[in-house]
Amino acid sequence: MARVVVQYKTPKDTAAFDRHYFEKHVPLAKKIPGLRKYEVNKGPIMTPQGPSGLHLIAILHFDDIAALQKGMGSPEGQAAGADVPTFATGGADVLILDTREV
Amino acid sequence: MARVVVQYKTPKDTAAFDRHYFEKHVPLAKKIPGLRKYEVNKGPIMTPQGPSGLHLIAILHFDDIAALQKGMGSPEGQAAGADVPTFATGGADVLILDTREV
Repeated sequence: MARVVVQYKTPKDTAAFDRHYFEKHVPLAKKIPGLRKYEVNKGPIMTPQGPSGLHLIAILHFDDIAALQKGMGSPEGQAAGADVPTFATGGADVLILDTREV
Repeated sequence: MARVVVQYKTPKDTAAFDRHYFEKHVPLAKKIPGLRKYEVNKGPIMTPQGPSGLHLIAILHFDDIAALQKGMGSPEGQAAGADVPTFATGGADVLILDTREV
């Protein structure tokens, strides 16, 4: 249950962002070894007070932190990471965490 | 596949935070109608550059946005929300999103 959570702030051109993200970035990221599930938001990302300033959240699921580190450190993981600055014109925050159910 | 993601920044007293969170807040939040799964991080929340400044991330799973809104708007959801400022001394960001797999 390890996760990479990528939070993309609203980019300058959302249409160009979406085109790159879904046509180029998703196919690259789906090649990462050990990736079990890849979730993105559909519709706006809200807060209880209104809009969040985020355009897209991606949640990449791995079995555990060892698998995550191996996958993200692989040539495919490095290629996906290197692609991010080419389209994330609003910036992106990447979080890495292990999770458990409570 | 709707999610509430709560990101707690590092509080002033992490031991006091954890005690309140796991002894009081989790039992309150688990009463929210429609909550299907409740994940929290185990271990530190990292970024590729190092520590994230976040102490705890909670991911609450609901079937869809309608169920999420109903649950969070219920008396149990309101009680869990009202509890947050009593222990989140570092602040907390709440995101609400619908997700799909890619």
